[in-house]
Amino acid sequence: MITRMSSLFLRTLREDPADAEVPSHRLLVRAGYVRRVAPGGYSWLPLGMRVLRNVERVVREEMDAIGAQEIQFPALLPREPYEATGRWTEYGPSLFRLKDRKGADYLLGPTHEELFALTVKGEYSSYKDYPVILYQIQTKYRDEERPRAGILRGREFLMKDSYSFDLDDAGLERSYQAHRAAYIRIFERLGLKYVIVSATSGAMGGSASEEFLAESDTGEDTFVRSTGSAYAANVEAVTTPAPAAQSVEDKPAAQVHHTPNTPTIQTLVDFLNAANLGRTFSAGDTLKNVMVKVRQPGATDWELLGVGLPGDREVDMKRLEASLYPAEVALLDEADFTANPFLVKGYIGPEALGANGVRYLVDPRVVPGTAWVTGANKLDHHVVDLVCGRDFTPDGTIEAAEVREGDPSPDGTGTLVAARGIEVGHIFQLGRKFADVFGLDALGPDGKPIRITMGSYGIGVSRVVAAVAEQHHDDLGLVWPRSIAPADVHVVIAGKDEALRSGAEQLAADLDAAGLTVLLDDRTASPGVKFADAELIGVPTIVVVGRGLAKGLVEVKDRLSGERTEVPVEQAVAHLTELVRGDRG
Amino acid sequence: MITRMSSLFLRTLREDPADAEVPSHRLLVRAGYVRRVAPGGYSWLPLGMRVLRNVERVVREEMDAIGAQEIQFPALLPREPYEATGRWTEYGPSLFRLKDRKGADYLLGPTHEELFALTVKGEYSSYKDYPVILYQIQTKYRDEERPRAGILRGREFLMKDSYSFDLDDAGLERSYQAHRAAYIRIFERLGLKYVIVSATSGAMGGSASEEFLAESDTGEDTFVRSTGSAYAANVEAVTTPAPAAQSVEDKPAAQVHHTPNTPTIQTLVDFLNAANLGRTFSAGDTLKNVMVKVRQPGATDWELLGVGLPGDREVDMKRLEASLYPAEVALLDEADFTANPFLVKGYIGPEALGANGVRYLVDPRVVPGTAWVTGANKLDHHVVDLVCGRDFTPDGTIEAAEVREGDPSPDGTGTLVAARGIEVGHIFQLGRKFADVFGLDALGPDGKPIRITMGSYGIGVSRVVAAVAEQHHDDLGLVWPRSIAPADVHVVIAGKDEALRSGAEQLAADLDAAGLTVLLDDRTASPGVKFADAELIGVPTIVVVGRGLAKGLVEVKDRLSGERTEVPVEQAVAHLTELVRGDRG
Repeated sequence: MITRMSSLFLRTLREDPADAEVPSHRLLVRAGYVRRVAPGGYSWLPLGMRVLRNVERVVREEMDAIGAQEIQFPALLPREPYEATGRWTEYGPSLFRLKDRKGADYLLGPTHEELFALTVKGEYSSYKDYPVILYQIQTKYRDEERPRAGILRGREFLMKDSYSFDLDDAGLERSYQAHRAAYIRIFERLGLKYVIVSATSGAMGGSASEEFLAESDTGEDTFVRSTGSAYAANVEAVTTPAPAAQSVEDKPAAQVHHTPNTPTIQTLVDFLNAANLGRTFSAGDTLKNVMVKVRQPGATDWELLGVGLPGDREVDMKRLEASLYPAEVALLDEADFTANPFLVKGYIGPEALGANGVRYLVDPRVVPGTAWVTGANKLDHHVVDLVCGRDFTPDGTIEAAEVREGDPSPDGTGTLVAARGIEVGHIFQLGRKFADVFGLDALGPDGKPIRITMGSYGIGVSRVVAAVAEQHHDDLGLVWPRSIAPADVHVVIAGKDEALRSGAEQLAADLDAAGLTVLLDDRTASPGVKFADAELIGVPTIVVVGRGLAKGLVEVKDRLSGERTEVPVEQAVAHLTELVRGDRG
Repeated sequence: MITRMSSLFLRTLREDPADAEVPSHRLLVRAGYVRRVAPGGYSWLPLGMRVLRNVERVVREEMDAIGAQEIQFPALLPREPYEATGRWTEYGPSLFRLKDRKGADYLLGPTHEELFALTVKGEYSSYKDYPVILYQIQTKYRDEERPRAGILRGREFLMKDSYSFDLDDAGLERSYQAHRAAYIRIFERLGLKYVIVSATSGAMGGSASEEFLAESDTGEDTFVRSTGSAYAANVEAVTTPAPAAQSVEDKPAAQVHHTPNTPTIQTLVDFLNAANLGRTFSAGDTLKNVMVKVRQPGATDWELLGVGLPGDREVDMKRLEASLYPAEVALLDEADFTANPFLVKGYIGPEALGANGVRYLVDPRVVPGTAWVTGANKLDHHVVDLVCGRDFTPDGTIEAAEVREGDPSPDGTGTLVAARGIEVGHIFQLGRKFADVFGLDALGPDGKPIRITMGSYGIGVSRVVAAVAEQHHDDLGLVWPRSIAPADVHVVIAGKDEALRSGAEQLAADLDAAGLTVLLDDRTASPGVKFADAELIGVPTIVVVGRGLAKGLVEVKDRLSGERTEVPVEQAVAHLTELVRGDRG
């Protein structure tokens, strides 16, 4: 296929769009791939369409390769199935809701677990029907509070979502691993540098879950990785290595101290160090007890929960919420303290919690035998050398403390550093949550129903285009990987000579005949303008048909390295075909 | 590609769906191509996806062939552009409207003229940029009052919409003709029997317009065609051949008659025939004057309009409205008659209208020299031999009378008969309506702006699937044309013998290697069930691998004719490849 720039619906821009915050947004707009139509709504112009379709093709091929079957649902969906799972409400303002002419409630699908579960229930009945993996590549809608960065976080976007249906956990694990392997192939083919991070489930509910993050400083997702291993995880998913339990034998007895004017950990530490107790205290020696209240799904009452963690760390509410999901978490208000007078604000200690039946969970670092400075449940008093397992026994551990750079990696090798990424994929063992709601069962060989277990797997197809652009660009413009470039070769006619024109046309025709896609710059613009546009557009191979043609030569330029090679025109097709096919792999 | 029915997400149904009114709905659901999700909302199952994608491919190829460039807009669109053209209101309850989290108004795009016009304005500035044709294949939304017939009239559907942008009328005509030719190729390739009918513009505004109607008794669109020529038109677009004007010389003078108790045309005719006036009258000799009021767009006042037509015909309000578009039309109410006492209800004649400055338009059959019985503008009185051009002069003609079977064809050959069809395509010279609203101009060679003229062209991609199914089925099921069939060959293993299975698997593999797509029925079901499903699914060629295999034979069955041929298995691939390629054309 030959695309002539003289008639291509494309106008490159010299200026960055005023609202562009990140390189992909800036360059995809400047190079004429996308245009903003509404907040978080973009149109795809011809070159953008090609890249988008190429990404779709790669995704489709790899999904088909694991036996997934493509179907398609409407985007406009009735309320009822989402009401049944609670997501009509749970999604809050992120869901686009509307009414039809009869006043019935509809939504624009943000994800389709409900419909897939119902459809499988409608078609399949026997255990012999399973397993099955279904997918769609479809437009999704989320009313983002702050759509940003062009197509990186839009309100209307293209997504591949697939769903696996299995008879048992081992089947789900196989479907999950098949997707994981397919995603790895997809992101490799797309030329994305990515990490796979352990993830918590967010609003989806369920168990095992991993995210594919394209590494990028402009990404919205923070994650941590090990300096010494391949370990990477969402901050919410980081587990804290527990130190070995210690003996309580040699620990001094707990002593309560009068500690006036110690409203903060630091003032407390300073007070103790000034009190000449024979040793030096640091914030990490204190045990901070943070009170929250927790409400289980469907419950009306809140339950108190004490969270104990070393005083040198803050509670990370996101980690706390993830640990307690699907329960809701809130901080206590004045009324809660009034209702529970044993909670002495600022001086809460483990003993009062245990004595009053309040559940108490601690950071994994709080192992038996460790001694702590903590509240004495009495105004202006703290206790020193309160020993875990001797003086108090927590009800369990919880991941609630902030994760810091330099923390040991959970896998035991290296320390953690923070990084940023763009979520391009998410794989997720949903389990039986949706099957339970809709009664999705298979009739087993013994005539008894088997509750189906589901997985849910997504790739942000349009977001991938932006993520690739974030990773593949330089100061001059975009530099597409071969697999999704809008053309194989960009042929520039560098001059107005008729000989150049006819030489370039012949070359383009020959390349087309050899099965390559050609973007031919046959415009009357100056060579300088054409070169600049070629760099901006980012086709990986640029062929300049210019002065050298008189000597039978064309120039082949590698967009990425900038390397130029003079190639005899009669060898150009063979040279370029080899180049393209080699890269395509 | 080989698709195994043992794992295909497909369950055929023995029963017709309860809500199915038409064959395509019934069969597409029973054969597992689509499933209902909501009123007017359907999911596409794997076989349906293939047919839909095949239609898309044909449409895309032919659009690309006329130089149209594919782009894509969001479906969720801001109110403002549609407010500017008035369509935010004009669409009435057919438009899905919603608000985002900030309360801003959005709509789900029913068609995209506004966005395309704005985008071209954003990118292009010089006359050198034009012409351009842009298209998209995209999901559209219309809140139909009565979604029906499965995917034939849905509320969410797939459409190819394209738009041409030209500098002048001749350019628009070229773009229009290019689309017309492309649509002819598309519908030919899709195997649709269709007619091209002259159409009025409906809510779109503009001039030349034609519809492509797939012939079908279940279609919602009525049209007329000539018994003697290729003429076909929407009823709204039928023009009435005017008889030759007659001399007024030899006509008797008009005489007013007292005609009591003649409330209807028939009682009037009977009265006159009983009055011994020396000749016989029929309803066609009377001139019925129907009063309506008309309001121009943007105007607040209504204007009276008299419509005169032969008394043997009723006014067809749709034809009248189409003739007066974009003005609104309404019947008179009591207050209107009270305000205009010269209108003597039941006895209105042309003279009172002219005398009171009321515009008076007549049916094209009312030519100069024709003599009529009509109202005398006086209770219980009619006038006989009121001659057009002598006793009254209309302000012009109007197409408002009903069209009847047996009317002469407007092209002069044959008479009209009524027929029904499914609108699958619409091509339309929009003109400058949208360009005027948005100020879409090109800078001309002389530095002066040139207002752009637009065309708008649509194909109902998902509806085409239903239209093809309406035309291509029999009592046993669907019979797909080769071009869009979900597979090239349906191989049925007719038995449980291992030899049959391995023979069929080998044949499928060989066909796959030859580039054919194969649906392989490798289920454990009985041959009867498999044959019935094969007929229902409708792949054009069915290969039965059964008892004959022992003698080295397979049976090749043509789904359409039912014809069976025994073919030596070693010649099967060559035979089938030739068959498929031959049909594909």
